[in-house]
This record gives sequence, structure tokens and C-alpha cells, in this order.
Amino acid sequence: MAGTDKTKPRATGVGPAIVLVEPQLGENIGMAARAMLNCGLTELRLVNPRDGWPSEAALNAASGADSVIAGARLFDSARDAVADLASVFATTARERDMTKRFVTPRQAAAEIRGFAAGGGRTGVLFGKEAKGLKNDDLALADACIVAPLNPAFRSLNLAQAVFVVGYEWFMAGSGAPASELRMPKETRPASKAELAGLFGHLERELDASGFLHVKEKQPVMVRNLRNMLQRAGLTEQEVRTFRGVITSLVSGFGHRRKKP
Amino acid sequence: MAGTDKTKPRATGVGPAIVLVEPQLGENIGMAARAMLNCGLTELRLVNPRDGWPSEAALNAASGADSVIAGARLFDSARDAVADLASVFATTARERDMTKRFVTPRQAAAEIRGFAAGGGRTGVLFGKEAKGLKNDDLALADACIVAPLNPAFRSLNLAQAVFVVGYEWFMAGSGAPASELRMPKETRPASKAELAGLFGHLERELDASGFLHVKEKQPVMVRNLRNMLQRAGLTEQEVRTFRGVITSLVSGFGHRRKKP
Repeated sequence: MAGTDKTKPRATGVGPAIVLVEPQLGENIGMAARAMLNCGLTELRLVNPRDGWPSEAALNAASGADSVIAGARLFDSARDAVADLASVFATTARERDMTKRFVTPRQAAAEIRGFAAGGGRTGVLFGKEAKGLKNDDLALADACIVAPLNPAFRSLNLAQAVFVVGYEWFMAGSGAPASELRMPKETRPASKAELAGLFGHLERELDASGFLHVKEKQPVMVRNLRNMLQRAGLTEQEVRTFRGVITSLVSGFGHRRKKP
Repeated sequence: MAGTDKTKPRATGVGPAIVLVEPQLGENIGMAARAMLNCGLTELRLVNPRDGWPSEAALNAASGADSVIAGARLFDSARDAVADLASVFATTARERDMTKRFVTPRQAAAEIRGFAAGGGRTGVLFGKEAKGLKNDDLALADACIVAPLNPAFRSLNLAQAVFVVGYEWFMAGSGAPASELRMPKETRPASKAELAGLFGHLERELDASGFLHVKEKQPVMVRNLRNMLQRAGLTEQEVRTFRGVITSLVSGFGHRRKKP
């Protein structure tokens, strides 16, 4: 899904801060930063990155999300990193022997947006690649986020974990239509009258050519053809093209029809 | 989100085949395979991978999703790769000058599951990392999937693009509860009677200690305290712990109360 387009609506609202606790590889921090910016998230907080900071590897892996890397803030502990936030989620895939509310990323997104509407800032904690968050870090959080994925192979890489939280946050505010017929600027969806014109044209020619010669089958055949063409969701341009196709097949496009 | 747990429900149904068209880096194929298996997808098809196949880099990056790599099938063209499928989606982020239905990953997931219920197999095409799919590949598809993300930074890496399709497919079938209070096996949510016992205990002691001495404020203070504790969603164990805390604060846990 390469490419960028500035014409589409942005998700609105202030997104959660992304807090990476003791991330190990700079490359993973960079990929997480890219995933953040894909989802319109810009605030990255790092707690004791193992390989130091700033990180050349992080910048390279960010693939252009340099602003997220440049704006990253360092903290000595997860507690310090969430001190100014009013709502904190922790991500985990492992079961933990503690009493905690677990939510899907989709539910978390709804709650983060609801909380922001009331003026509250949220942060989401992600643990180190190999082991995830410590139980003490989980105790900083109001709830845990767990993506309900393949239970036999649930280990997401760090960037995927960040992405799924950011993606749901963006989706919850994007208002994007689920399904949309897009077309070149110079055309538009055909009107029902234009479609009826096409149907009439086709059916007259099929009648003349003998295709509809069994009278009792005619209504059902006509209905099937109309359903088939209706499903295609034709544009005005395509209706004209299709009528040209019919005319061409019938008349040889003004020339004598060639033998096949 | 590291970790694996075999106790949770799987998403049911046959997932879409993932078709990578001319992928460039073996590492990206491997990360895509891992993302697939995270989402319960197992059928990988490769059209002319640039760096050849099999690929050591792919196997390394798959982080354990070896079965997906081992089962990958090679094709000479996207057309061949989708020949046995009845429904095809193409992924893109760029606007294309063609008339096509565009759907979100979430909508695609619903359609893939609907199509599978009718017996139809679906495949999803992903283009090469740098440029995405060619327009001729898009013409093989019934519709395009586009993730409605940050329009100013929409370029997903290949594994993320695969992941967002797989994640939505899995979510559409997982039936996971959006929010769930989890707790250690040996406890359970407190009953309302147990909670009422705690409230009574606390309020009696507060009354005795003078905290509730302004009679006209008593009802609203009691209500606020009850709301606060109610929101915590206490377990039976936590109610007992809390009552122990009250007793300890009042009596010095059986000993003479120490001066602060």
C-alpha cells in the first residue's frame, strides 16, 4: 500500500502517546515510528532504550517518519514516562496472574477518544521485544490491551503491536466510507435512465438477432441480463462504451461484418 | 505483545490467500509470513520474488512462521496466481485513474467471510514494496482495499499491509469480547452483597471516627465513596483485603495504634 495522498480526510483529535519500555533494537523503534505516523500518531516516549539514543538504526528504519524520531523523549522509568498522563493502557499477549480489565485494540480506541473528549491524555505502554512488559509496569495501567489474534502464534513484532493500536485509533475517527465506487474525475455513475437506455438497446438487438426467440423464456433472460449489468455499477462513460460495443457487434462498426 | 496462549477461541473459516506480486526483499516476505500466521492465515503465493526462492532471509524474518514459508507457492504471473480463486482484492494506497470499488480492510473482511460462506475462495494481491501493484494487476481484482490512514504518510511496509488485512479478517470472526475483567483463577468478581458489606463496614468506621460528622453532607459523601469503589470492579478477594485494610487502620491490626 505505497503512496501518499493529501486529499483525504484526517482522523481528528489528539492521539495517545506511544511509550516503548526498554526497546532493544533501534530498527524496531524506527519501524514503530513509521507505524505511528501512518496512523497519525506523533508522540513517542522511550524508557531506557538498550542500544542508546539517538539511534542511526532507528532513523533508517523510520522510512521518512523522521519527525517522530526527532521528537522522541527519553525517560528513566515507565512511571516517569506516564506521570503527566491521565489514562494509561498496557499491551500484553501473555496471561497475567492479576486482576485487570482487558480490552481489544478497537475498544481501547473508543475509550481513548472518549477520554480525550473529556480533556484527558492517554498513553499506551509497549514492552521490550522479547518479553513484553513487567508486571510492575502493568500495574501502572488502567487496563490492558490484547489483540485477539491466532492463539497458537500470537507474538507480534513491536511495530505491528504499535500499528494495531494506532490503526484502530485512526479508524475510530476517520469516518471513511466502508465501500465507495471511485472513478476518473471526468465521469460519474450512470443514471438509471442511461442504464435503461442501455438495456433497451441490448434487448432490441438481441431480439432482432434471434437470441430471445423463445418467447416464454424472454422475461427471465431479460431480467438476468439486467441484474448482471446492474451489478457492475457502470459509469456514464462505460454505458456509452458498452452501447458502442453492441453497435459494433451488430453492424461491424459501420463496415461490412467480417466472417469469424 | 509477545506470547502465545492456546486457551482462547480461534477465528473460524478459511482465510484469503495472500498473493505477493514481485516482492523485492526476502526479509519482507518473511515478516509478511509472520503477520499472516499472527492472523491465522496460512496460504502464501509468490509471483516472481526478485531475490529468488527459497530465501534464507525470508525464513529468518518469519520468526517461527516456518510453515507459511515452507508452503508458499510460486507463480509466473498475477493472473496465474489468482486463476483458481473466485474473488480477488487488490491493495493500493495511490489513487488510480480507473473505475473501481474501494473498500476499507474492515469491509473487505466482511465480504471475504460472506463470500466464503457461499463457498468462494478469495485472494488478496499486494504489490512490490516500492511501487505497489501495476494497473494491469488491479484489473484482475473485483475491488481495491485501501486502509484509510494518515493521508500525509500513508506508505505501509509490506508486512503491515498484509497484517491489516489479516487482522480485520481475524477480528471479523473471532467473537472476542471488547472488554473483559480477567483475574486469577482462585478468585471471582465480588457479589453486590459482598460489596454492600464492605460499604457498610467502611461507613460505620468513618462514622465512628468522625469523618461523617456533618450530617447534611453524609448522604452525598457516602454516595461518592460508593461510586468510587464500585468503579474499581473489585473481586471477592479484593473486598476481603480492603476490609482487612479498614480493620488495620482502625485498630492497629490488634495492636495498640502507633503514633504517626
